[in-house]
Amino acid sequence: MNKKNFFFKKKTKVTLSEIKKLLFIKDNDKTIINDIKDLRSAKKNDISFYNSHRYFDLLKNCKANFIITNKKYKNKVQNYSKAIVVENVLKSVALVTSLFYPDSLNDTIDLNLAAPKIKSFNKVFFGKNTLIGENVKIGSKSMIGHNTIIESNVVIGSNCIIGNNVLIKNSIIGNNVRILDSAIIGKKGFGFFPNNNKNYRYPHIGIVVIEDNVEIGCNNTIDRGSLSNTVIGKNTFIDNQVHIAHNVNIGKNCIITAQVGFAGSSSVGEKVLIGGQAGISGHLKVGNNVQIGGGSGVIKNIPDNSKVMGYPAKDIRKFIKENK
Amino acid sequence: MNKKNFFFKKKTKVTLSEIKKLLFIKDNDKTIINDIKDLRSAKKNDISFYNSHRYFDLLKNCKANFIITNKKYKNKVQNYSKAIVVENVLKSVALVTSLFYPDSLNDTIDLNLAAPKIKSFNKVFFGKNTLIGENVKIGSKSMIGHNTIIESNVVIGSNCIIGNNVLIKNSIIGNNVRILDSAIIGKKGFGFFPNNNKNYRYPHIGIVVIEDNVEIGCNNTIDRGSLSNTVIGKNTFIDNQVHIAHNVNIGKNCIITAQVGFAGSSSVGEKVLIGGQAGISGHLKVGNNVQIGGGSGVIKNIPDNSKVMGYPAKDIRKFIKENK
Amino acid sequence: MNKKNFFFKKKTKVTLSEIKKLLFIKDNDKTIINDIKDLRSAKKNDISFYNSHRYFDLLKNCKANFIITNKKYKNKVQNYSKAIVVENVLKSVALVTSLFYPDSLNDTIDLNLAAPKIKSFNKVFFGKNTLIGENVKIGSKSMIGHNTIIESNVVIGSNCIIGNNVLIKNSIIGNNVRILDSAIIGKKGFGFFPNNNKNYRYPHIGIVVIEDNVEIGCNNTIDRGSLSNTVIGKNTFIDNQVHIAHNVNIGKNCIITAQVGFAGSSSVGEKVLIGGQAGISGHLKVGNNVQIGGGSGVIKNIPDNSKVMGYPAKDIRKFIKENK
Repeated sequence: MNKKNFFFKKKTKVTLSEIKKLLFIKDNDKTIINDIKDLRSAKKNDISFYNSHRYFDLLKNCKANFIITNKKYKNKVQNYSKAIVVENVLKSVALVTSLFYPDSLNDTIDLNLAAPKIKSFNKVFFGKNTLIGENVKIGSKSMIGHNTIIESNVVIGSNCIIGNNVLIKNSIIGNNVRILDSAIIGKKGFGFFPNNNKNYRYPHIGIVVIEDNVEIGCNNTIDRGSLSNTVIGKNTFIDNQVHIAHNVNIGKNCIITAQVGFAGSSSVGEKVLIGGQAGISGHLKVGNNVQIGGGSGVIKNIPDNSKVMGYPAKDIRKFIKENK
Repeated sequence: MNKKNFFFKKKTKVTLSEIKKLLFIKDNDKTIINDIKDLRSAKKNDISFYNSHRYFDLLKNCKANFIITNKKYKNKVQNYSKAIVVENVLKSVALVTSLFYPDSLNDTIDLNLAAPKIKSFNKVFFGKNTLIGENVKIGSKSMIGHNTIIESNVVIGSNCIIGNNVLIKNSIIGNNVRILDSAIIGKKGFGFFPNNNKNYRYPHIGIVVIEDNVEIGCNNTIDRGSLSNTVIGKNTFIDNQVHIAHNVNIGKNCIITAQVGFAGSSSVGEKVLIGGQAGISGHLKVGNNVQIGGGSGVIKNIPDNSKVMGYPAKDIRKFIKENK
Repeated sequence: MNKKNFFFKKKTKVTLSEIKKLLFIKDNDKTIINDIKDLRSAKKNDISFYNSHRYFDLLKNCKANFIITNKKYKNKVQNYSKAIVVENVLKSVALVTSLFYPDSLNDTIDLNLAAPKIKSFNKVFFGKNTLIGENVKIGSKSMIGHNTIIESNVVIGSNCIIGNNVLIKNSIIGNNVRILDSAIIGKKGFGFFPNNNKNYRYPHIGIVVIEDNVEIGCNNTIDRGSLSNTVIGKNTFIDNQVHIAHNVNIGKNCIITAQVGFAGSSSVGEKVLIGGQAGISGHLKVGNNVQIGGGSGVIKNIPDNSKVMGYPAKDIRKFIKENK
């Protein structure tokens, strides 16, 4: 799902030479680069990056003229685009992202919150002590609970019920969505570069997209993406105390029970059932119609139509047989 | 523990023919049915339901004249009551519950909250920004923390300390109870019928009953029951970030440490100790004096006086031996 | 890290005979005892306690003249200090702590909260509905989010960002610290003595110390210590939904991902990486440069430079080999 990002202001007229200077590469090329994007969504005038064979299929189809990579992948990348070779791909991406989006490292407090101006909304119910940022859009017949904070630029559809003590930032939410009490949606992901004295923060310019008919449980934390978005697909229901890290992509009609955790950048297909307290490691692909037993630890990709359980998760028949 | 439910308005004068019509069964029987109840608490003029052999003992002693069931259990049920045979028992129960309790599908925002009217309470301390619903009862010498929300009809005993940012709805709370900061008590359970386009919600007319001397930790989520109640027994102490699903029944004097999760409808005896991050699957029975090691995944019933550990949980001596 | 405790008022001029009377020991010794402390931090005129061989090294170097212990350890203790022999060491420590700190059993609501007096702070931003206790100190250029509560006597350094809906009590926080939304820092630990009718609470006079450059994730719960402090070392970053029990000590430059849980009194070295949903049992020592895989259950000490995974956690090569 591709949603326009109006949460972070983008610098325009960035030249390739500016970008390369930041990466300690001398070059006078004044070509204008439009944006930094992941392999999937980059267009011709964008810059992208490649640092794992896991994403080779995306590389082959990537439209970007320029791709940041390292020595190891240089030759591979050059078959498809112009390679900009650096030592540390992710650090370079962070630097370039900060160049395009100078405010992206501030995940701070929204200074523009105020009581809602009732006239700006059509048939929206607001609870007591609700705080609303600038340019917030909320569809008709939606309800916003007591003490809830909706930060600037957030979009919420019609017929939604947002509970009490909820915090929403950097998010676009569909129609007929329920977000239960004390959920926290859209804060930056847990991404940074460790450093002995003071860690370097990683810019997060992705958002959270929640599609129609979704239910998000109490005390959930759903982090926004770094470059791409965190997405919860249509009609997916999520129980209490679930954690969803940055860039995670969950398909339609999934059922995710309490205390499940997703590490960053994993994707989950449609109609997936996940039992309580299961954990999904980062950068994995869980197929469609998968069932994951409660308490499982998923550390590799799971093909379509599988039933798995265990830590590490394996075929459920094997798990049951081994534990008789 | 049987507490009168004054949280959901019940329709009166419902006839058997109305109920059957809803389930696509033609019948002109004008017998008045009083309520829909689980097997344990149903009286003569109530309707109940049966869809698992797990509850056969309750069926044998059930007082209800009419029981909703399916083809498979029809003959068994007819030995004790009149069977109303349907295709999908739970969907039928949901429909009949919604007939008796037309508001039970609204788990929405309490529109009647306001600052507490101090005069209505005897020696109760209220923090700043506290919001209280209608007909809330709070015993003397209780304290209600800052930013806390107590929704309409909730009952809280004497000498209780309710922390800050707490949300309580559909609950009856005893004396000398402590509910620590940001706990969420009494929202609907995670029960619904999956549907391709838009899931059907399941009505939850149960409540949460918290007995005397209990302590509930920070960030706990305790969901109310669907038909029966969620109960936390006397003098049980619960640590932070614990999730307790709908219909769970926890006995007296239990100690439940942080990040434990209970799936729906499980029951736990008295003096049970549960270590951190353990998970208890749904519809299980954990006996008295049981000890469950940290991180365990309990997927079958546990008899009295057992010590278990592991995933799946097994006798602790076996677990230790296998992991030497 | 030794921080002066100005959160709990200490009784002065407590005599040894008063202490012994409380423990049902007759004695007329009018020696003034200054305080009750753990073995590590006790000085000459303090009283301390010993009830596990695990702490023998600390006993040998303890400066306290008097040490509460039981029959089993009496002879050992007498080699270094004067032993006060009791039946139940922890209950006796609780009694003596309550004698020195009569308010320590009240973990109640701060009655002195009010909107911040802006003039008392230098260049501090306060959000809407923020509540601040008495004698709170906040360094310049720090930001305090909306609906956040900072209880009396808390100290926060400069350049900090404290998110929305945060609750901080009994804590001292360094410079350049970020505490993300809805974290709860400094409430009492989950320590008490089970009793059939009504559990006895354990006094918690420790605090939470958070050093410079730390990041604490959303919905974290970090409990304060009982006698000693809970400490989060410099430049350690913690993800969402992590639980840290009383007396836990985490070193510098650690990375702790989401939904991890620490039981009481464990210590973690420097540069430790812990994967999501891992659990660390109580009273353990995890060394420096340790890596703990996601979902692991750590139930014994882990030496420096180890990589472990599994439940129970073992050498990661062994875990991978066994699960091929």
